Amino acid sequence: MKTILIHSGGMDSTVLLYHLLEEGNTVKALSVDYGQRHRRELDYARELTAALGVEHRVADLTSVTSLLSGSSLTSSEIDVPEGHYAEDNMKATVVPNRNMILLSLAAGWAISSRFDHVSYAAHAGDHDIYPDCREIFTDALDKAIRLADWHEVSLHRPFVNRTKADIATLGEKLKVPFEKTWSCYKGSEQHCGVCGTCVERREAFHLAGLNDLTLYQPVAPSIDEMVANHWKLTQ
Amino acid sequence: MKTILIHSGGMDSTVLLYHLLEEGNTVKALSVDYGQRHRRELDYARELTAALGVEHRVADLTSVTSLLSGSSLTSSEIDVPEGHYAEDNMKATVVPNRNMILLSLAAGWAISSRFDHVSYAAHAGDHDIYPDCREIFTDALDKAIRLADWHEVSLHRPFVNRTKADIATLGEKLKVPFEKTWSCYKGSEQHCGVCGTCVERREAFHLAGLNDLTLYQPVAPSIDEMVANHWKLTQ
Repeated sequence: MKTILIHSGGMDSTVLLYHLLEEGNTVKALSVDYGQRHRRELDYARELTAALGVEHRVADLTSVTSLLSGSSLTSSEIDVPEGHYAEDNMKATVVPNRNMILLSLAAGWAISSRFDHVSYAAHAGDHDIYPDCREIFTDALDKAIRLADWHEVSLHRPFVNRTKADIATLGEKLKVPFEKTWSCYKGSEQHCGVCGTCVERREAFHLAGLNDLTLYQPVAPSIDEMVANHWKLTQ
Repeated sequence: MKTILIHSGGMDSTVLLYHLLEEGNTVKALSVDYGQRHRRELDYARELTAALGVEHRVADLTSVTSLLSGSSLTSSEIDVPEGHYAEDNMKATVVPNRNMILLSLAAGWAISSRFDHVSYAAHAGDHDIYPDCREIFTDALDKAIRLADWHEVSLHRPFVNRTKADIATLGEKLKVPFEKTWSCYKGSEQHCGVCGTCVERREAFHLAGLNDLTLYQPVAPSIDEMVANHWKLTQ
């Protein structure tokens, strides 16, 4: 299989990168700079792909950031909420139509490369606060992508039935250097440990029974404190 | 209706702009700089929308141009073919997945604006050399866009059953300043008169019985010469 991988520099898409390579696939990786405050993840994506000798490109969409307003991920005027994804305040992290924009760019690259798939790390823990993570949406988009060119490209979502803890377990097996991946939405020097994606990351390692080597900011509660304080840690 | 219009600066989308405004709709216009050699059209789009007081934005996608290779519209190494769209050599003007990329950006802007539609000037003369102009594709994409957010946005294609000559006739009625629109794919100082989109433009005015005020390069054959020399002028 020849595939374009949407690679954010986070743990899910990095495990998927290792998984695709281990399966013997030809992979090119695409990251997107949409003005996210955690654009630090792009440097992580560059370093991870370079280390593996994988062609990597960053699409610069910063000129459209102001069109996609209303998200704390792209607006400095809206705080990144803390807590678990399942909570309602996480809606502030929705970037309008982000997935379709990313996947349509990747599909264009796949068509011009004569590749057959666009792969991305949608997983069973993706939350319904993101309407464009729902299967009903990605099924419809897959159909559109298949029809977009005479050269058929389709979406490949091998993790769609795996939890993030499953992905952590697979990554451990594939020797993914998790400490070289970036998740935190706040984009400071260290992972904050308390935003939605940090909580999800910590939860995944915890549930997988793995040692979490990520450096969190010293002010973040420990995973044990989070459990003791009744943070929702199951999906 | 509140709608984002994909506005290229060409005659079809400009007639659609006038049509939407005349119907009393709220319109914001989006153009996309994807490194097309005829980016001169973007200046025309800016001037046309400014004259009407319509908010207009240009999304800069030039960083992804190199991903979407293989088209004469974005590559200086591939000549823009001359002749009628119906001819096979026009395939060199296909930009991989262009329509999905444009429409997904417009849909993102519509969602963040709480607008209900994305409008574009697909018409009955759009040719099957562009797979992403086919109704089967746009129907699938419409379904995906409707599912992309809790706030439903759908595609609006009011010209889908009209020919380009019909559009010219409507534009004449709406007093569209056709001489301020740009079609030519070559993007020189004047319309070349012989590339696919120039031929289609000239054909539309000819079939509509309208005076074509466009300045074509002096070397281009006249419309009468084209007819005499058996250019295919019917769709």
